Amino acid sequence: MQTLIVDFKERSYPILIGSNLLDAPALIVPHLAQQRVAVVTNSTVAPLYLERLSQGLAQHGVDVLPIVLPDGERYKNWETLNLIFDALLGNRCERKTTLIALGGGVVGDLTGFAAATYLRGVPFIQIPTTLLAQVDSSVGGKTGINHPLGKNMIGAFYQPKLVLADTATLDTLPDRELSAGIAEVVKYGLIRDPVFFEWLERNMEKLLGRDHDALSFAIRRSCENKAAVVAADERETGQRALLNLGHTFGHAIENGMGYGVWLHGEAVAAGTVLAADLSHRMGLIDVATVERIRALFAKARLPTAAPDLGGEAYLRLMGLDKKVEGGKIRFILLKSIGEAFVTSDVPAEALRETLAGCGARA
Amino acid sequence: MQTLIVDFKERSYPILIGSNLLDAPALIVPHLAQQRVAVVTNSTVAPLYLERLSQGLAQHGVDVLPIVLPDGERYKNWETLNLIFDALLGNRCERKTTLIALGGGVVGDLTGFAAATYLRGVPFIQIPTTLLAQVDSSVGGKTGINHPLGKNMIGAFYQPKLVLADTATLDTLPDRELSAGIAEVVKYGLIRDPVFFEWLERNMEKLLGRDHDALSFAIRRSCENKAAVVAADERETGQRALLNLGHTFGHAIENGMGYGVWLHGEAVAAGTVLAADLSHRMGLIDVATVERIRALFAKARLPTAAPDLGGEAYLRLMGLDKKVEGGKIRFILLKSIGEAFVTSDVPAEALRETLAGCGARA
Repeated sequence: MQTLIVDFKERSYPILIGSNLLDAPALIVPHLAQQRVAVVTNSTVAPLYLERLSQGLAQHGVDVLPIVLPDGERYKNWETLNLIFDALLGNRCERKTTLIALGGGVVGDLTGFAAATYLRGVPFIQIPTTLLAQVDSSVGGKTGINHPLGKNMIGAFYQPKLVLADTATLDTLPDRELSAGIAEVVKYGLIRDPVFFEWLERNMEKLLGRDHDALSFAIRRSCENKAAVVAADERETGQRALLNLGHTFGHAIENGMGYGVWLHGEAVAAGTVLAADLSHRMGLIDVATVERIRALFAKARLPTAAPDLGGEAYLRLMGLDKKVEGGKIRFILLKSIGEAFVTSDVPAEALRETLAGCGARA
Repeated sequence: MQTLIVDFKERSYPILIGSNLLDAPALIVPHLAQQRVAVVTNSTVAPLYLERLSQGLAQHGVDVLPIVLPDGERYKNWETLNLIFDALLGNRCERKTTLIALGGGVVGDLTGFAAATYLRGVPFIQIPTTLLAQVDSSVGGKTGINHPLGKNMIGAFYQPKLVLADTATLDTLPDRELSAGIAEVVKYGLIRDPVFFEWLERNMEKLLGRDHDALSFAIRRSCENKAAVVAADERETGQRALLNLGHTFGHAIENGMGYGVWLHGEAVAAGTVLAADLSHRMGLIDVATVERIRALFAKARLPTAAPDLGGEAYLRLMGLDKKVEGGKIRFILLKSIGEAFVTSDVPAEALRETLAGCGARA
């Protein structure tokens, strides 16, 4: 097992990474404020892991309330959040009752937001069971739900007490979701870790083959990168925005196609290729670098061409992004593999050309 | 104009108290992160003050988006909150757009919670227009909405950038709401300020007569007391719970009667008399003190007898309170006028007797 600490001073918390950590409830118990938890999961993950986690906790004298939600990004909304509140209130959960998120990014974001707002805040623990959640969404405290007019528009910054990443849970992950998680792994290489990007170019086959050592390394390296960025900028006033490489375009793709049609990681991959293309058109990187990025996503079996929503639709959808400031859309662009920056100073012509190319290779 | 500072270190903010401050937008402008605000108000307050505030801000070059909600405690729910989100998203409000709450406690709690969660947090300003909001709900950062199973069950601790209390807005306040606000004013005397309690005994007629000097003094003294308590305990882990004197019973009354039937301050007054009665039955205060408290509420034209919901219903409803810990209901009780404490160690017999007395004087 490996341990990282995310440094938020008095709100610092550990990330534990290892195989079969679900069978080690003793890792969780010391972090509980009360011998009572609510485990929030979904209908896909529950049959796989809920019983194992609950029994282990029960053997340590912990009272477990299971809350099973429907599965899918389209349920990341107020109605589903209310199912959590209904269960917590109906069972009289208190300010010291810990919420445990057992599942992927949707379960983590919903549970975290429920924890941030139930009784104005209760403790929570993340047990991510997808690669995407293990390398990205479970770390850093972003929680929230979607709104019909935009993704993640309602939420809170709220840190967990503990993140427990069990690599064995990835054995049951569908191939498409494994690839979607790799999109965020590649992102860390692109924005700040060129050595890791090269490692990924050499080891992508192993990741797709679910080699446990390779996965463990990729998860740890991703979490180290993310923890360093978010610890320096919890509320996204500066460099944390770099973590959104590919996301301005990606959110437009997810929203424009209808939530859930494209997986988040798939939209980020295609969105990152658009960001690379735009960086190239602005003279920041050469065409070989764009192709190298595209090739790595392709190797990870991810889409490298964005859907043709039309340039106008992209602009409108990107205008809804949370990073918009003074009416200007903010882009994360690349200076090289391993160096990204934020700008809202993008020539309209270059952006138009990048968007006009969408669908070309779809 | 008088200025108080609520001390939350880097999140400290001023409370400005005075007559006709609504005509001084220059007090607001320096606190804006962007020359754009959304003013959230309700259908009762909008015709009285929205135009005046909006025009003043517009004259300072501030772009104003008005958001008018239906009026009443029964609208303090997710559906109304979503009306705010719809307007903010539909008009592309950004992370630097300030939300201004113009109205009473319901508008303030809804707007504050919207500010806490829109794009994971945007700045907000409180302009309370009821006495209750000026002396209590606008100060301290509690925000939130009701749930069918309990009041204020969903929310966040989120501090405003500025509170602006215009005493002239109290001229249009209905008598019943003025009295409801006085209930919270009396509370500060009871929990920590015996000199203020005596001042209230001598000056209640002036407050009811809307004497501006008396109101200004009562607001300032209330805010000073509240600011001192919340600055020491932002997230209610200790002494802040004392501010809930009368509220454990009061919330049960509001919930049991149906939200909006009793005003919050009315329920707090009757609930405080129950807390005093319970304190007396436990041998903490004498019967003369209970009567003195009852007399002051009566003088303020507030109910001093709680409705007869039945003892079982009270216990069930109080079990839903946010202050419940380890299944035990926590009570705020009195040792004297000016000294309160928190306990969950209440003899069942004393509580039963207190609840059995409900309705006796209704």
